[in-house]
Amino acid sequence: MKVVKFGGSSVASAVQFEKVFKIIVGDPERKIVVVSAPGKRDDQDIKTTDLLIQLAHSVTGDTYSKDLLNRVISRYGDIVNGLQLEQHLLDDIEDSLLATIHEHRLEEGRLLDALKASGEDNNAKLMANYLSSKGYEAKYISPKEAGIIVTAQPGNAKILPEAYVEIAKLRDHSGILVVPGFFGYSHSGHIVTFPRGGSDITGSILAAGIGATEYENFTDVDSIFSVNPNLVNQPMEIKEITYKEMRELAYSGFSVFHDEALQPVVEKRIPVRVKNTNHPESPGTSIVAERKPTKHPVVGIASDKGFSSINLTKYLMNREVGFGRHLLEILEDENVSYEHTPSGIDTMSIIIRNHQLSSGKEERIIKRIQEELLVEEIHMERDLAMIMVVGEGMAKTVGIASKATTALSNAGVNIKMINQGSSEVSMMFGVDESQVDLAVTSLYYAYFSSNKSDHG
Amino acid sequence: MKVVKFGGSSVASAVQFEKVFKIIVGDPERKIVVVSAPGKRDDQDIKTTDLLIQLAHSVTGDTYSKDLLNRVISRYGDIVNGLQLEQHLLDDIEDSLLATIHEHRLEEGRLLDALKASGEDNNAKLMANYLSSKGYEAKYISPKEAGIIVTAQPGNAKILPEAYVEIAKLRDHSGILVVPGFFGYSHSGHIVTFPRGGSDITGSILAAGIGATEYENFTDVDSIFSVNPNLVNQPMEIKEITYKEMRELAYSGFSVFHDEALQPVVEKRIPVRVKNTNHPESPGTSIVAERKPTKHPVVGIASDKGFSSINLTKYLMNREVGFGRHLLEILEDENVSYEHTPSGIDTMSIIIRNHQLSSGKEERIIKRIQEELLVEEIHMERDLAMIMVVGEGMAKTVGIASKATTALSNAGVNIKMINQGSSEVSMMFGVDESQVDLAVTSLYYAYFSSNKSDHG
Repeated sequence: MKVVKFGGSSVASAVQFEKVFKIIVGDPERKIVVVSAPGKRDDQDIKTTDLLIQLAHSVTGDTYSKDLLNRVISRYGDIVNGLQLEQHLLDDIEDSLLATIHEHRLEEGRLLDALKASGEDNNAKLMANYLSSKGYEAKYISPKEAGIIVTAQPGNAKILPEAYVEIAKLRDHSGILVVPGFFGYSHSGHIVTFPRGGSDITGSILAAGIGATEYENFTDVDSIFSVNPNLVNQPMEIKEITYKEMRELAYSGFSVFHDEALQPVVEKRIPVRVKNTNHPESPGTSIVAERKPTKHPVVGIASDKGFSSINLTKYLMNREVGFGRHLLEILEDENVSYEHTPSGIDTMSIIIRNHQLSSGKEERIIKRIQEELLVEEIHMERDLAMIMVVGEGMAKTVGIASKATTALSNAGVNIKMINQGSSEVSMMFGVDESQVDLAVTSLYYAYFSSNKSDHG
Repeated sequence: MKVVKFGGSSVASAVQFEKVFKIIVGDPERKIVVVSAPGKRDDQDIKTTDLLIQLAHSVTGDTYSKDLLNRVISRYGDIVNGLQLEQHLLDDIEDSLLATIHEHRLEEGRLLDALKASGEDNNAKLMANYLSSKGYEAKYISPKEAGIIVTAQPGNAKILPEAYVEIAKLRDHSGILVVPGFFGYSHSGHIVTFPRGGSDITGSILAAGIGATEYENFTDVDSIFSVNPNLVNQPMEIKEITYKEMRELAYSGFSVFHDEALQPVVEKRIPVRVKNTNHPESPGTSIVAERKPTKHPVVGIASDKGFSSINLTKYLMNREVGFGRHLLEILEDENVSYEHTPSGIDTMSIIIRNHQLSSGKEERIIKRIQEELLVEEIHMERDLAMIMVVGEGMAKTVGIASKATTALSNAGVNIKMINQGSSEVSMMFGVDESQVDLAVTSLYYAYFSSNKSDHG
C-alpha cells in the first residue's frame, strides 16, 4: 500500500487533475492520496494558498472585498468546469468559505489557519469527486476522520503520538482515500496548519501511520539534482539517496523536501520516491535508509547563505572547565539556536543563522560574553555562506578533502572554514557569500565531471 | 632589565656553571637569574629533582637510606669542587636537607614539595656564591623574599595577583639576584611547587613582575624547530614566532615551552627568547606578540596522540535548543574537560584526551548521554592523533588547505577530521595514531621544501 502526495503545481488545473488521475489509477497500491491546494499554473500565477492568506488578512484588517473570495473560487471553478464536475461543488466551496469567515472573523490566528487549510481541503474534495465520476471507489476523508490529531498553536501544528493509532486503521478502508494535506485537528476540534513542509508532512505522517511500502511524492521535477540547476547546466540526477544525505542537503538549501517532513518516514524506514507528475515514466529519486554505493563518493552539493560567526579568543580557554557550557547557556537564555561551534586551542566560533540575531539579541549576547566569560577578543563575522558536500562513505575515501580544497584553491576561493569528520556523510566549507556560487560550481565539476583532472 | 632563566642541563655541572657565568656577565641587563636544579649531564644521568622525589618517597615509605641523600649531595659536590667554592656550602646543603626531612617527615605532600624545591634552591645558592667568588655583586634571594606568593595546595601552586606588587620592587635591587625556580611560598609560609612548567614559570612571573625588556630562556637547543627533529632531519629553525602560534604548537606536543608558563609574559607582552647555553652566540627563537611575515605562511607543525572522540547522531539534533548545553553539562558534572566539539547537521563529536576518561567516567558519560539526550547512535572512536599546522595569517592565504590535504592524500593518509577557520593561526587535522608521523612528515615537506611541487 502506497501513500501518494501531489504538490501544488500537480493539482493546479483540470489538465493537471487528469494527469494525477492517471497516475493514481495506474497502480492499485496507490490507496491513500494527499493533495495540496491549487498551485501556480505558470510563473506569473498566484498560489491559492497565497490568495487565501490575503483573504484572511482582508477580513481581520477590515478591508474585505468579495473580489478576493471570488478569485479563490474561480481557481476551483476552472477545475470543476474543465473536468465537467457537478456545479454544486462550487456552491459548497463558497458556502464553506463564507461560514469559515463568519465563524472565525474575530480570531486572527484561527481564521488564517482555517482559510489556509481550505485550499487543500476543497481540492481534496474535488479530487475524490473526480475519481468517483470516473467510476473508481474513492472518498474524501478529512484529517479529523483520518486521525491527524495535532497540537493546538495556530500555524504550528505538531503531530501527537496517539494520532498514529487512529491513522493505522486507514489500512482497513476499501477504495481510494483522498486526504487534504497541510493541516490536522487539535483535541478541541480546531483546524491547525503545519509550520513547514505543508502537504509533504501530511503524506509522511500517513505513510508512517499505515506502514506504507512507499511514499510517493509527486512534484514538477524529474528528480532531485546533485547541485542547484540554476548554477550548473543539466546537472547529474540523483537516482538514490539516503535519509541522512537528504537531510544534510535539505539543511543547506535543497528545498525539494523539508527535513521535518521526512522525520515520520525516517523513523519507520519507509522509502520515499520523488517523481514528476508531468513525466511519471521517469523513475525519479528514491530516498532510502541504505543505498548501494556508486562510482561517485559525493551525491550532492548544496549551499546556503545568511550565516554569521561570533569569534572569541581567550588565552588558555580550553583549560577552563565550563567555558563552553556557560557560552551555550547565554545563547539558550536568548533562545538563539546555533549551528556549529568550531574551536581552536584558545579560540571558539559560534556559527548562527542571521535571522536568529534579531532585535538587540546580538548586542546583549556579545555584552554578556564579554562580561561573564572575560574573553580577550570578540568579533562578528558576517555574510558567510556554508557549503555542504554530501555522500555516504565519503569519510572513508582518501583524497576526498584534497579534491575539494584543490578545486576551491584553483578557483581562487578563500576557504574561511572547513569542518570535516563530525559527520560521516558530509564535509562543510564556509566561504564568503560573494564566492559561494563560484565555490559550488567548482566543487561540482571536481566531483562530477570525468573530463576534469582527478588529481588528489 | 632582563630576566634570564637556565634549565636543568644548563646548570648540571661545574662546566655548565662556567658557561652560565659568562652568559650572565656578558650582558649588564641580565639582572635577575632563575636557575633550575642540576639536570642530566648525559643521557644516562638522573635529574636531581628525580633523586629528590625518590628521597621523599623513601622517607614517607619508611625505606629511607642515607645513600639517596648522599647521591643528591654529590651532585652539588661536583659543582662546588669543580668551581673551587667553599666546602661549608655542602655542609649547609646537607644540614638543610636533614632539617627538611625531619620537619616534614609526617606530611607526605609538604615533604615532597620541600625536597623537590630544594633542588633549585640549593643550586641558586651555589650560583650566587659562584658569581660573588668571581667578584660580581650577586645575591641569592628566596622566592619568599622575592614576593612569589602562591596558593597553598602542595604541588599545585598558582601565583596570587598580589604577588606582583612585591615582585616589582626587585627592580630597585643593585647587583645580580639569583632566584631558584619551580616554587613559591603560600601565605602560611609553606613551600609550594608549580604543577607544570617548573622554573620556566618562575622566570615568566618575574619577567612580568619587573616589566623586563626580555625574558631569556636558556636551554640546550639552538632554537625551536618547525617540526619535531626526530621526524625530519635538520628541520627549519624558527627565528620568530608569536605567542598565539607558540601556544598552538605547545598544545599539540611542542614541549619546549609549557603554555601555562608563557601566560604571565603574554599578558604583559614581554618578548621571550629561547637560547642555547652551549651555543649562546646563536640568535635562538624569539617569541613575541606580533611578528613580521616571512615567505612561509606556516611556522610550525605539531602533533599529539591520545585522543578519543564520542560521536553522536540524532535526527534534527540542531533544532533542539539546549542540546549542546546539556551535553556539556554532563561532561562538567564528571569534571571532564573536552578539546573540541565539531558538529554536522544531526551529528556531534566530542574530542577528549584519553586521560580525562579514567575510572568509569566513560561509561557514566555514555549512559547519561543515551538516557538524557535520547540520541539514536553513540560510539567511541579511539587512538586519534591531532595535528596542528600553525602560522599567523594562514587564514588569509588561498590554497593553504589544498596544499595540506593534497600532501596527506598523496601520502595515503586518511583524514578523519579537519577543523579550519575557528583559529586564525592554525588548521587542525585528526588522523589515526598509526598514521600521524607519516602525516606530519608529509605536511612538513609540503610547506617547507622548495623542491616539492607547490601545486594548490
